[in-house]
Amino acid sequence: MHILLTNDDGVYAEGIQALAIGLVKADIQISIVAPDHERSAVGHAITMHRPLRAEKVKFLHNPDLTGIAVNGTPADCVKLAVDILLPENPQLVISGINRGYNLGNDVLYSGTVSAAMEACLLGIPAIAVSLADSVNPDFEPAATFIADFIPLVAQQDIFQSALLNINIPGVKPEEIKGVRITKLGSRLYRNPFQKRTDPRGRSYYWLAGELIDAEEKEGTDVHAVKNNYISITPVHFDLTDYQMIERMADWPSLIKRGENVERR
Amino acid sequence: MHILLTNDDGVYAEGIQALAIGLVKADIQISIVAPDHERSAVGHAITMHRPLRAEKVKFLHNPDLTGIAVNGTPADCVKLAVDILLPENPQLVISGINRGYNLGNDVLYSGTVSAAMEACLLGIPAIAVSLADSVNPDFEPAATFIADFIPLVAQQDIFQSALLNINIPGVKPEEIKGVRITKLGSRLYRNPFQKRTDPRGRSYYWLAGELIDAEEKEGTDVHAVKNNYISITPVHFDLTDYQMIERMADWPSLIKRGENVERR
Repeated sequence: MHILLTNDDGVYAEGIQALAIGLVKADIQISIVAPDHERSAVGHAITMHRPLRAEKVKFLHNPDLTGIAVNGTPADCVKLAVDILLPENPQLVISGINRGYNLGNDVLYSGTVSAAMEACLLGIPAIAVSLADSVNPDFEPAATFIADFIPLVAQQDIFQSALLNINIPGVKPEEIKGVRITKLGSRLYRNPFQKRTDPRGRSYYWLAGELIDAEEKEGTDVHAVKNNYISITPVHFDLTDYQMIERMADWPSLIKRGENVERR
Repeated sequence: MHILLTNDDGVYAEGIQALAIGLVKADIQISIVAPDHERSAVGHAITMHRPLRAEKVKFLHNPDLTGIAVNGTPADCVKLAVDILLPENPQLVISGINRGYNLGNDVLYSGTVSAAMEACLLGIPAIAVSLADSVNPDFEPAATFIADFIPLVAQQDIFQSALLNINIPGVKPEEIKGVRITKLGSRLYRNPFQKRTDPRGRSYYWLAGELIDAEEKEGTDVHAVKNNYISITPVHFDLTDYQMIERMADWPSLIKRGENVERR
């Protein structure tokens, strides 16, 4: 099995390095193609208006690993790796291990999840992995979980078409209670922006936001990690709201062509 | 009714200007808060690592309009407008009129659609509007369609929670056949990157890609615009794959805690 690793924390980030080491230890072939620096919260951005560069990088403290740094977004990395940089398509793309959760509707902003989604759009199954943010995150147990997880679930035929968003609580391995298959919960923030004044007296705004600690329903990813379960959420990318389509069946007659287009 | 206008082509783009003029003519109160320059294909990116500025701008050829330019993404604009810049919440957010379609899975990359989605996340109904790209796009009929559309559908109670992705064919108004409520189709590209060599002999890669002109099924947005219908697709942002959740019910027992966590 050949796995492409990417992330949004940048190619030198501890999370992707720990993941690479964990997978290599488990005799899994990996390639690393990741952004040259942090690209958090870039969502599913792709780079159209300037060219991309791809540079081989070495990791001084991990001399057995090499990687490719791309001056683009996580989605760019996956696109470029699959189209140009890799000699063959990987069987799986793993994005992470991200420092900090990607839960609930926050996945919409997540470069980590978008890289995995880009892989799925290209027909390659993908996993996004995130670890709770903490002062001193320990990526090694998370990497070991993933290394063990892959052969276990690779036999499942549904895995072939899946995008799995995995979040791992920031507790010691022995405190992890197990695994839950979850849906995306909600993440709501209050006071999203701080208004400040610069040294020249002009206003600026900085995204901040305090997470509203709402009662989370059982079954969500937010609830699972709060209760020390590893959360696995299957994610899809068909944004069509099919229920609404049915409810809008009479709209074309409502929006009569004559009223809208010919009136002018 | 008070409508917030934004886009991803930038505050000075012809599309948002034409839309503003069309809505003002229809006696609709508008505010414009849009990126200071083009931010296409930024997806749902938000700006976390640097501050945002918001500057009032005037439009010399439209002296009746004013707007606010933000040095951020479309999603930033909506967030900042609603939290800080507007004295009250708008009743509706319209993102566009974009130059060029936002169809099928391309909506994942679209700053236009992401701005509308950000509004929905904040509880405000939203519309993304895109016009076919052409050498000399005529935004005025599209703006008139939207100005007529809003009061017609505003009475519909489902409109209150909807995100509608509207695409308008690039033909003369009299050639428009009507309106179709659609699902997102697929947009596949071949040869996504061009590899080139710079003046110093180093390689670079530029996103290109030719759209594969696949047979599109009736009922999709791609099919509708191809047949000169205005396409309206209801879009949601719950990325959970509920069918997969059911099919993964036995995974937690498969991924036994003992095998994964305690083995190390």
